[in-house]
Parts: sequence; structure tokens; C-alpha cells
Amino acid sequence: MSEFDDAIAFTPADAPGSYDVRLDRAWTIGGGINGGLLLSVISNALSDALGAGGHPDPMSISAYYLAPGRPGPATVETSIVRKGGSVSVASATLVQQGADGERVESIKVLATFTDLDKAAGETDVRLTPPNLPPLEKCIRASDAPPEVLKEADLLQRSDLRLDPATAMWAVGKPSGNGRIQGWWRLVDGREPDVLALPFVCDVLPPVSMDLGKLGWAPTLEFTVHVLAKPAPGWLRVVHFTEHVAAGHFVEDCQVWDSEDTLVAQSRQLARLPRPPR
Amino acid sequence: MSEFDDAIAFTPADAPGSYDVRLDRAWTIGGGINGGLLLSVISNALSDALGAGGHPDPMSISAYYLAPGRPGPATVETSIVRKGGSVSVASATLVQQGADGERVESIKVLATFTDLDKAAGETDVRLTPPNLPPLEKCIRASDAPPEVLKEADLLQRSDLRLDPATAMWAVGKPSGNGRIQGWWRLVDGREPDVLALPFVCDVLPPVSMDLGKLGWAPTLEFTVHVLAKPAPGWLRVVHFTEHVAAGHFVEDCQVWDSEDTLVAQSRQLARLPRPPR
Repeated sequence: MSEFDDAIAFTPADAPGSYDVRLDRAWTIGGGINGGLLLSVISNALSDALGAGGHPDPMSISAYYLAPGRPGPATVETSIVRKGGSVSVASATLVQQGADGERVESIKVLATFTDLDKAAGETDVRLTPPNLPPLEKCIRASDAPPEVLKEADLLQRSDLRLDPATAMWAVGKPSGNGRIQGWWRLVDGREPDVLALPFVCDVLPPVSMDLGKLGWAPTLEFTVHVLAKPAPGWLRVVHFTEHVAAGHFVEDCQVWDSEDTLVAQSRQLARLPRPPR
Repeated sequence: MSEFDDAIAFTPADAPGSYDVRLDRAWTIGGGINGGLLLSVISNALSDALGAGGHPDPMSISAYYLAPGRPGPATVETSIVRKGGSVSVASATLVQQGADGERVESIKVLATFTDLDKAAGETDVRLTPPNLPPLEKCIRASDAPPEVLKEADLLQRSDLRLDPATAMWAVGKPSGNGRIQGWWRLVDGREPDVLALPFVCDVLPPVSMDLGKLGWAPTLEFTVHVLAKPAPGWLRVVHFTEHVAAGHFVEDCQVWDSEDTLVAQSRQLARLPRPPR
């Protein structure tokens, strides 16, 4: 079993539609579990809940982030909203216990699931995959300075190779373009699938870094559209922003597979990092 | 009172957090209430529910469409998920009675609200407003053929002037560019505000029309980001798509105000119209 499968694994809980999960410290960044990983955890639970109705594949997932996910036990509470012929809709909440045993909701989700193997109809993509330098000319995220890696166990879960032209912020020279892109695969070689795509859409550093705003950029809202099942091999991931408004920015992501198919895209609304005091 | 204010008006229902509304036939298209108008109705109820906590303005709203909204009475059931310092999160469901008195949920929503007057921080927009011909050179949507207007009471609620270059689909010559844009204001002259923006983001014909796919394009998921309070005057609205995948398409929308401020943007995942039998 790959470490990713382990990270998103669940056991059915006593309450109907609820799934017990264990969030591992290995997927943290700055002390909290990566928000995209949490969305893959939730997607896996929803895939079980909706798979019985013939709709195991995420198509659209919208997440509202309420509190950081912490390492330790958690429960995904799912509720089927509508079972349909070609798609089903469900809601989900990720719940943990607070320090005093209180209920802490960290994410609320609405999602539409389908069966991608039965998806039919026209495809007409006018976007083009990013033009990335070859792998060996890219920068390994795991080569980040020790003080960065210390705060980001997450970086060691991915084999992430950043396009150097979009990684100059790491050496204090952000391009200002608001674009970060690179090659990605799981470090243990597990091939990508639709359940990994929500994670992939949040796996690059926040694009605010390339605007010269270092630090944590908390996500308020994050919607992922899964467009196709990815082919095996490296994925290419692009993050970009076209606007910042009143201290918040919108970050777009596109994920392309080894056969040049756009397999997922996402958009998130996040807060710019607060300047250090 | 403007007809738009009337359309989004509510009266508090008996159940805590619930709001009774009346959906008017005047806002229908093809028999169902316009999905954006429904989102403005829900936003108005959420603004009341969250306004008491100091967060009356929508910032991000994600809607999952379950069934068409029908003219007649309806209830918006709201639930506050998290009250925060600068933003609050809530969920909402729009409910109607079916033919046999059964509960029919038509939309589920997650939303973040804030106080835009207190929004502070950097603004840096790299997008530019659309280059529209002057009003008098644009095409009035209300000049559509009678057989179109008959199915679209909605068209008469807006003073919508389409850029002719993006409206050739109406005369059987879609450009294939996947772009529709125009000027917009409410027909009774009511000025735009943040509660109108969800409606505005869904007020143009579906962009699939410009791909030569005429007919109803049902929305699965629709997320609106409100970026600023609009200035009085005409708004400029742009709809475009950059990809169709397996019979579904993603439609982006930008709304610019009379002072060249990007006041809202949205993205929706919709199904291409099914070919006529």
C-alpha cells in the first residue's frame, strides 16, 4: 500500500455515512494538514458513500475551510443530498476533537460525483499544457533549505520539480508574475488517480510566493473540477493568479497528465499572508 | 421598491434561521427560475443571518443545483457554520413543496460573508475590462424574437446590450470562440449592489450558445467571488469558456463596474445542451 493510499484510508464509523480516518503528521505544512490532502481524504469517503449508487468519481468538489486539520484521528461525516442518473450530490464535514473534547469542524464540502468511465460527449480544450523544462533542469522541492523542510513535512511526500523560472522567490527574487509550475508525482511512485487530484491541485507552494508575499496563505474556498482520469506518469501542474483584491487573491490551478489531457482544474480564494510583525 | 428588491425579499419564517420567499414567474427561463437570481435570493437571506454578526456582504458563494426552482413560495433554510473576526461561514438550502407536498431541495449552498467596508489590503488586478462597443451599437436582448422571449420572461428584467460580435449565434452564426459579453443594468434602473452580483454572474445566455450548442445548459456547480462593492451605473459582463470535457463545460464570468473595478467573478460547471431528438 502506498503512503498516499494509507493517508486517505478510512474505516466505516458507527454512525451511518461516517468514516473514521487518521491524519498523519507526514502531510503537514506549518503544523496543519495540507488542505488538498484533506480534500482527497474526504473524496475517498464520498467515493465510498456514492460509489454504491454507481458514482465513485469526483466531478466537482467545493470546500470551505473553517479550522486547520491537525494530526490525529478525525471523522468524515457524509450525507447524500441527491441520487441521480448520471451524477449524485453529497455534503461532507471533516470533524476532529478539540483540546477539551469539543467538536471542531475543519472543512465543509459540497460535491458532485459521477462515473467517469461512462462520461460521454464532446471534448474541446482550448488551453495548452505548460511548456516546462525537462525534469533534470527543474528544482527539486525536497532540496529546499532545512529551515523550510522542517516546517513542511509535506514537501517530502511529493517528487515535485519546479520550473526554475517560476521558483526564484525561493532565493528572494520573486518574478512578480504570479505563476508557479512544475512536474509532480508521488514520492513512492504511486500513479495518479482521480482521488489524488484534489491533493495535486493544492500541492504547489501558494502562488502568492511568486508575488513576493512569503508565508501562509489560508484558503477560504477551494473548488476542484475533475475532468478526466489521469494516465500513468508525471503530471504537470500550473498555479497562477490574475488578481489580488483587498488582501485576498484567487489562485487557479491546471493539472495535465502525461498524454496532454487536462485532467483537473481548480480555483481557490485565499488570504494574502500577513506581513511579519 | 424595485422589482429586483421585491424578487429577493424575504419574511422570517417560524423556524430559526429560515426565511420565506416568493419566487416570481417574471424571473423564469424555460419554466425554471434563473439560477443566479436564486443565488441572490439566498444571499439576501444569508446577509440577514450573518449581518447581525457584522458580516452582511457575500465574499464567496458555492451553489450545487439539485432541481429547478419553480414560481411560488419557497423557504431558505440557513445555518451559521462559523462566526469569525473578519469572515463568517454559513450553509443554506432552498426548499419548495413538490406536487404531492413533499420536500424538494433545489439548491445547496456554502458561503463566506464579510464586511466589505472593512476589507483592507493590497489590490492588484492584472485582468482588463472588456472592450465593448458603445451601448447604441449593441444588441438589446429584449429585441430577441417573440418565440425566444416567450420562453424567457427573465430577459425583460434586464437591460442587456450584447456586443454584436459575440451574439451572432442568435442569427445562426456562432463564432465558435466561446465568448459572450455585454452591458447590463436592471431594467427599472435600480443600481447594482453586492446582492445583485450573483444574479449578474448568471444573467448572460450560456456561453455554449457561442459554440453553436443552443438550448438549456443545466448548471451543476456555480461559485461566485464578490471582490468589491459596485459603483452606480452600467456593469460590463463577460462570459467565456476555455474548455469542454466529456459533454460538460466550464464557464467563467467577470463583472466590471463603471469605474473599471472587477467587482465579481464566477465559474460554473454546466452540462452541454443535449442535441434535439
